[in-house]
Amino acid sequence: MDWTEKILAGDVRTVARLIRDIDDNRPEARGILKELYPHTGRAYVVGITGSPGVGKSTLVDRMIQHLRGQGKTVGVLAVDPTSPFSGGAILGDRIRMQRHSTDEGVFIRSLATRGHFGGLTPSTRGAIAVLDAMGKDYILVETVGVGQDEVEIVRAAHTTLIVLIPGMGDDIQAIKAGILEAGDVFVINKADREGAEKTRQELMMMIEMDKGRKAKAGWTSTIFMTEAVRNEGVETLMAGIQAHREFLFKKEPAHCIDFEHQRARMELFDLVKQDVIQVIMERLTESGRWDHYLQELVQKKSDPYTISEEIVARYLKDQV
Amino acid sequence: MDWTEKILAGDVRTVARLIRDIDDNRPEARGILKELYPHTGRAYVVGITGSPGVGKSTLVDRMIQHLRGQGKTVGVLAVDPTSPFSGGAILGDRIRMQRHSTDEGVFIRSLATRGHFGGLTPSTRGAIAVLDAMGKDYILVETVGVGQDEVEIVRAAHTTLIVLIPGMGDDIQAIKAGILEAGDVFVINKADREGAEKTRQELMMMIEMDKGRKAKAGWTSTIFMTEAVRNEGVETLMAGIQAHREFLFKKEPAHCIDFEHQRARMELFDLVKQDVIQVIMERLTESGRWDHYLQELVQKKSDPYTISEEIVARYLKDQV
Repeated sequence: MDWTEKILAGDVRTVARLIRDIDDNRPEARGILKELYPHTGRAYVVGITGSPGVGKSTLVDRMIQHLRGQGKTVGVLAVDPTSPFSGGAILGDRIRMQRHSTDEGVFIRSLATRGHFGGLTPSTRGAIAVLDAMGKDYILVETVGVGQDEVEIVRAAHTTLIVLIPGMGDDIQAIKAGILEAGDVFVINKADREGAEKTRQELMMMIEMDKGRKAKAGWTSTIFMTEAVRNEGVETLMAGIQAHREFLFKKEPAHCIDFEHQRARMELFDLVKQDVIQVIMERLTESGRWDHYLQELVQKKSDPYTISEEIVARYLKDQV
Repeated sequence: MDWTEKILAGDVRTVARLIRDIDDNRPEARGILKELYPHTGRAYVVGITGSPGVGKSTLVDRMIQHLRGQGKTVGVLAVDPTSPFSGGAILGDRIRMQRHSTDEGVFIRSLATRGHFGGLTPSTRGAIAVLDAMGKDYILVETVGVGQDEVEIVRAAHTTLIVLIPGMGDDIQAIKAGILEAGDVFVINKADREGAEKTRQELMMMIEMDKGRKAKAGWTSTIFMTEAVRNEGVETLMAGIQAHREFLFKKEPAHCIDFEHQRARMELFDLVKQDVIQVIMERLTESGRWDHYLQELVQKKSDPYTISEEIVARYLKDQV
C-alpha cells in the first residue's frame, strides 16, 4: 500500500507521519494531499478558540467523550500560533485529552511550526484534510487566543466555538468586534464562577446589536453555559453545535453553497499566497538580489515601495 | 506646498489624511511614502502589546506625559488587528490618551483597516514612516493582544514592551514562548495587586531559562513594575527603555547593523508579499479565472494544490 491508500484505510502511523511532514512544509506531503483531496469533505469541522486559561482543553476532552458516546470518530488538532520564532508547541494542559489516546476512534495531534512563508493556515487545512480522508466524523481544531491568526484558522471550520469565562467584562468589550463576527457558538465555561449570568447577558446584548450586519447570513450566534470539569452543560452545547450544522446544511441550501464557496476561496487564497511568495523569495535569494536590495534599503539608496515594484515587474508576467 | 513638503513641515491635517489613505490602501499614498522614505529613520519606535485589560492605554498615556516632560515630541499609533471582518477600530479606552490631543507635540491616530491583501503590517509601517518624517522623536505603537499579528507589528519597533498584570500565571505559561522572544522589556502593571511579586519571579525564571537561545543577540529582557494609574514606576520604566536604546545603538555597533538589516528585511518581505498577491488576485479576478477555479474546487474536479501550481506557472516568469 502507498501512503494515500494507508491513510484512506485509517493507518494511524502514516497519518501521524504525514501531518508532521505537512507541518514541516515538506514538498512530498503535497503530492499525497492532492491524491487525498477527492476523498475529503465528509468530516464536520469544529473550531474552538479562546484566551489561555478558559478551559478549552477540558472542554474539548468532554466533547470527545460525548461524540464517542454517540459512536462518532473524532480527530483533534491543537494549533499553537503563538510562537513564530521557536515554533514550539505548547502541550502542557493538553495532556488531559491524552486519556483518549488509547481509543482507536480518537486521533490527537499538535501543530506548531509555521509553514515557511504561509503561516499556520495552509498546514492546518492540510492536516484537517488528512483527518477527513482517514474517515473521522468530527474534527475539533483547538487554538490558543482570539487574535487574527486564530480567526483565520477557524475559517476552515464549519462551526466556530468561542470559549469565555465569567468576569471577562473588559475583555469582551475590547475584543468584541473580532469575536462576535467569528463565533457561531459562544461557550461561557466555568459557569459556576461569579458573574456568569452577567457575562451571558452582556454577550447576548452584543450579539443582538450585531445582528443587523448579516455577516452570518441568517444565523444568530448562540450562547451556552458549561462547567467542563464537571461535565455540566456539555450535552446541551453539543446539541447547539448540531443545530448550527443543520442550519448550514439543511435549512438554507443557498447559504450552504455560499458557505462551501467561501471556504474554498479562503483555502485557495492562502495557498496561492504561500506558493507565490515562496517561489519569488527562492529566486530573490538564489540570484543574490535580495541581499542587494537590503543593502540599498539600509543605506537609503532606495525605498521599499520602489524595490517591491521592481520585484513585481521582474518576476510577474505582464498578462492577465 | 505639496503633501510631502507639508508632512516634513509637520502639518497635522496632511499627516492625518495621509495616514487614513495608507490605512485605506490608496495607491496615491504610496508615491508620497516613497518621497518621505529618505527622511525617515530618526524616530525611536516603541511597541506596546499585551492582553486586553492590562492597562496599556493608561501606561501609554503616562509614557507620553513623561516624554513630553523631557521635551520630546511623541506620535502614537493604536493598532487593532482583532477585527478582520468589520475592520473597526476599538477606540474605547483610548479616550484616556486624548487629553494630550491639544498638545502640539503629540499626535495620536488609530489604525484599523487591514490592507486589502497585506494585513496590518505594511500600513502600520507606512504610518510609522509618516510620523517619523513629520519629526516625532518617539513613536509609540500600541496593539491589543499577544498573538502572531501583534508580534509582527512590533517587529517594526526598536523596543518592544509586553504588558502583563499580576496573577496571570496560567497565561504566562501558555504564551511564554511567543512573548518571551518578542519582549525586550516586560512591564507588570497594576503592581499593587496580589501576586505581583510572584508574577515577576516566574517571568524572571523564564527569561533566565530562555537566555541560551541568543535570539536577542546579547540583550537580556528586563522587568519593570508599574501602577500606571498612579504614575508609579513609569520613570524607572522609561529609563529601562532608554537602556535598551543605548544597547541597540551604542554598545554593540555590530548588532546595531544586524538589527537595522533585520528591520529592513521584514519591511521589504511584507510589502513584496502584499504587492505580489494583489497583482495576481486582480488578474485572476479580471480574467474570470478565479471564479472558474473556485467552481472546480467546490465540485472537487481539481484540488487547491494543483490549482495553486497552475496559477504560479501562469503568472510567474520562469527566471531567477
